[in-house]
Amino acid sequence: MSKTVGILGGMGPLATVDLFAKIVENTPAERDQEHLRIIIDNHPQIPPRVEAALYGAESPLPAMIESARLLEKAGADFIVMPCNTAHYWLKELAAAVPVPVYDMIENAAEFIAGNHPEFSGKLLLLATGATVKLDLYQKAFAKKGLLLRLPAEDEQTVIDDAIKRVKVGELSANPYRDALNAMLDRYFQDGVKAIVGGCTEIPLLFPFLHDSLERFDATLLLARTVVKAARGA
Amino acid sequence: MSKTVGILGGMGPLATVDLFAKIVENTPAERDQEHLRIIIDNHPQIPPRVEAALYGAESPLPAMIESARLLEKAGADFIVMPCNTAHYWLKELAAAVPVPVYDMIENAAEFIAGNHPEFSGKLLLLATGATVKLDLYQKAFAKKGLLLRLPAEDEQTVIDDAIKRVKVGELSANPYRDALNAMLDRYFQDGVKAIVGGCTEIPLLFPFLHDSLERFDATLLLARTVVKAARGA
Repeated sequence: MSKTVGILGGMGPLATVDLFAKIVENTPAERDQEHLRIIIDNHPQIPPRVEAALYGAESPLPAMIESARLLEKAGADFIVMPCNTAHYWLKELAAAVPVPVYDMIENAAEFIAGNHPEFSGKLLLLATGATVKLDLYQKAFAKKGLLLRLPAEDEQTVIDDAIKRVKVGELSANPYRDALNAMLDRYFQDGVKAIVGGCTEIPLLFPFLHDSLERFDATLLLARTVVKAARGA
Repeated sequence: MSKTVGILGGMGPLATVDLFAKIVENTPAERDQEHLRIIIDNHPQIPPRVEAALYGAESPLPAMIESARLLEKAGADFIVMPCNTAHYWLKELAAAVPVPVYDMIENAAEFIAGNHPEFSGKLLLLATGATVKLDLYQKAFAKKGLLLRLPAEDEQTVIDDAIKRVKVGELSANPYRDALNAMLDRYFQDGVKAIVGGCTEIPLLFPFLHDSLERFDATLLLARTVVKAARGA
């Protein structure tokens, strides 16, 4: 009997669709009944994370706890959150519910440290400026012995702008695609080996980015861990 | 304040992802907080519908009721099901929960009757052989004054085979794509004006089918109704 997965979603809704799809696509199943039971609370009314973490606006934590408890009551055996910034409150959230809350960022660090420790210092973080400022990836990766390279300030602006356009559905037509590719080419010349997609929008751009660099998609890595954990592997 | 949507899903999981994505993409929103709260129970362990409806195997109704009650307790104000065959039990399901359960098939019939009544008799049903046998679309469309055309037996076999390959992810590479297109061309010559995608897999093939015929995607039509209903429009 597989475990029931809980997805605390809505931060944002498309990232939630993306994690759900990646879990389904990565479940070995030949018929519906072999798939996983997944309960999702797509709860976009949770207050904005960046504003709260960086500028002291209303905390999203109470609404996150409400959703996590709803999922647990509905039968979720563990909970995941497809939102990097929300991980700023992960410890407090986990303390408030009786089931485990998996850490998407630590999960990505663990996978890369286990499979590509030689990439330390050659990993470029592509995330929002807010995630970078909150030190979420840098800290989690350092704990696993991995050093991340961070974009320069003007490059970070391009990344943030590109992400905003992904949010409104501009993928192949993203106006920052060429600028991003030029940037990746420079880092490749400079010895960088891989991109860490530390924002749920970045992997949606992967098909349109130069493939000289390896890509790590934190959402996909989380989906694979969810499938293993739920199936008891 | 928008209403909370409940999705009774898992029949199958990819169709559930598809409806969720279509609801999110069709919600007018500029920020996360303007999106809809959606609670999903992706419950693939619900017993197979076709086997039960056509051959008397174990009924899925008790598991469907369990999911619907879970959604209602979690806060869903109304419930939808992205599975055509499951609509065979819609009345009994609706009677067992205190919130409305929307009818995807009736919804499609209503839209087409309201917008294209002139298509009556010129609508080709593309659904599984089981859905056709259960008379679900024919009955709902007849109630709205719309006559459906049904594929011949050998054509239905092609459709069923094509749907099976969609279920394992074969879209542009679907081996039945040419056969389907040849069939659509014949119907076009014969006066058919539109396809009714009465199977949650069929719309995934739309981009690869000849576009001489108009297409109606019951999942997309349901998503639009969900957005309107939840926003109180």
